[in-house]
Amino acid sequence: MTVRLSASLEHLIEALAELPGLGPKSAQRAAFHLLDKDAARLARLSEAVTEAKTKLKRCRSCRTYCEGDVCPVCADERRDRGLLCVVESVPDQMALDASLAWPGLYFILSGRLSPMEDRGPEEVGLTDLIARVEEGLREDNLREVVVATSYTPEGDATAYYVIEALKKRAPDLRVTRLARGLPSGIEIEYTDLSTLAGAVYDRREP
Amino acid sequence: MTVRLSASLEHLIEALAELPGLGPKSAQRAAFHLLDKDAARLARLSEAVTEAKTKLKRCRSCRTYCEGDVCPVCADERRDRGLLCVVESVPDQMALDASLAWPGLYFILSGRLSPMEDRGPEEVGLTDLIARVEEGLREDNLREVVVATSYTPEGDATAYYVIEALKKRAPDLRVTRLARGLPSGIEIEYTDLSTLAGAVYDRREP
Repeated sequence: MTVRLSASLEHLIEALAELPGLGPKSAQRAAFHLLDKDAARLARLSEAVTEAKTKLKRCRSCRTYCEGDVCPVCADERRDRGLLCVVESVPDQMALDASLAWPGLYFILSGRLSPMEDRGPEEVGLTDLIARVEEGLREDNLREVVVATSYTPEGDATAYYVIEALKKRAPDLRVTRLARGLPSGIEIEYTDLSTLAGAVYDRREP
Repeated sequence: MTVRLSASLEHLIEALAELPGLGPKSAQRAAFHLLDKDAARLARLSEAVTEAKTKLKRCRSCRTYCEGDVCPVCADERRDRGLLCVVESVPDQMALDASLAWPGLYFILSGRLSPMEDRGPEEVGLTDLIARVEEGLREDNLREVVVATSYTPEGDATAYYVIEALKKRAPDLRVTRLARGLPSGIEIEYTDLSTLAGAVYDRREP
């Protein structure tokens, strides 16, 4: 007979293993870490999960998670409501906003298009985006939508689909993507060929 | 008394230590490696250095090292002679050309401006570049110069200086820089803030 874990411990490990970045092994280690320390720790995690589930809703405007109807970013009067940046995730939004370069609002898709994972336009929230853009055109003089996906195959495919959908609904709206090109601080000699080609094709006035 | 290396061995180590990437220790290791193997190896290195010194000249047009008056790239009839790309070094030229995105010719500066290392406009070859551009305007309908330096403080400073000099001599010539922005294959979430800011400022039509 080999050691068998109790069912509830297995459930905990399985639940932790579903977190991105935790494989079966590290989920097991995390589970024992939680159990070993003290009961209070497990209770806090449980309460935090329950509280999050109860209190957090989707922001009516950008779809981030927040406790009110509208998140603090969308409610911020100092932001330019005529500019909308479409991102794939909250971490992407946080990174872009930390750059201090975007003065407008955001819309957060539920990830990227992925036929492999059965995530189509509806699943990533394209219908909500169209509704949000139509509202923006009606109420906020929306004048530009930046589709801020990465220059990866999935990011390109998602951008393509989103841009086509926007062009169909709002042909006069300016729709852009982030610049592709040389990243800051990297020497040309050590840059990959695809990035160099993009930087040449999109060369610009200084 | 400690072990002393003979003078000629020390000269060899010193010569090798001046190669980029070789510190004193690794130069010493390289020296013994050359000596240990066989005399032919040392002779070959010596001959190769002498041969390079004798045969290689600067290309009259782009200033790369080549055996004739004009290098194969500048002599290539299929390249668009109306486009000139200014790079800091031959490795930069090789990287850009390998991307297959640049259909024109090149001009190779001798590195970047560096007040710390006493490398000013004259040292990096600005006078030669101006002469090359004026020749291009006269003889090849030169229509665009891309200043292909990196988005680093030194690359920016060099680009600024070169662009100012070109604008002064040829105000109607189109002068551009490489695009700055998101590199290929990198997720937004993991991109540095300065690159993200550049990608937002230079966002473009898809």
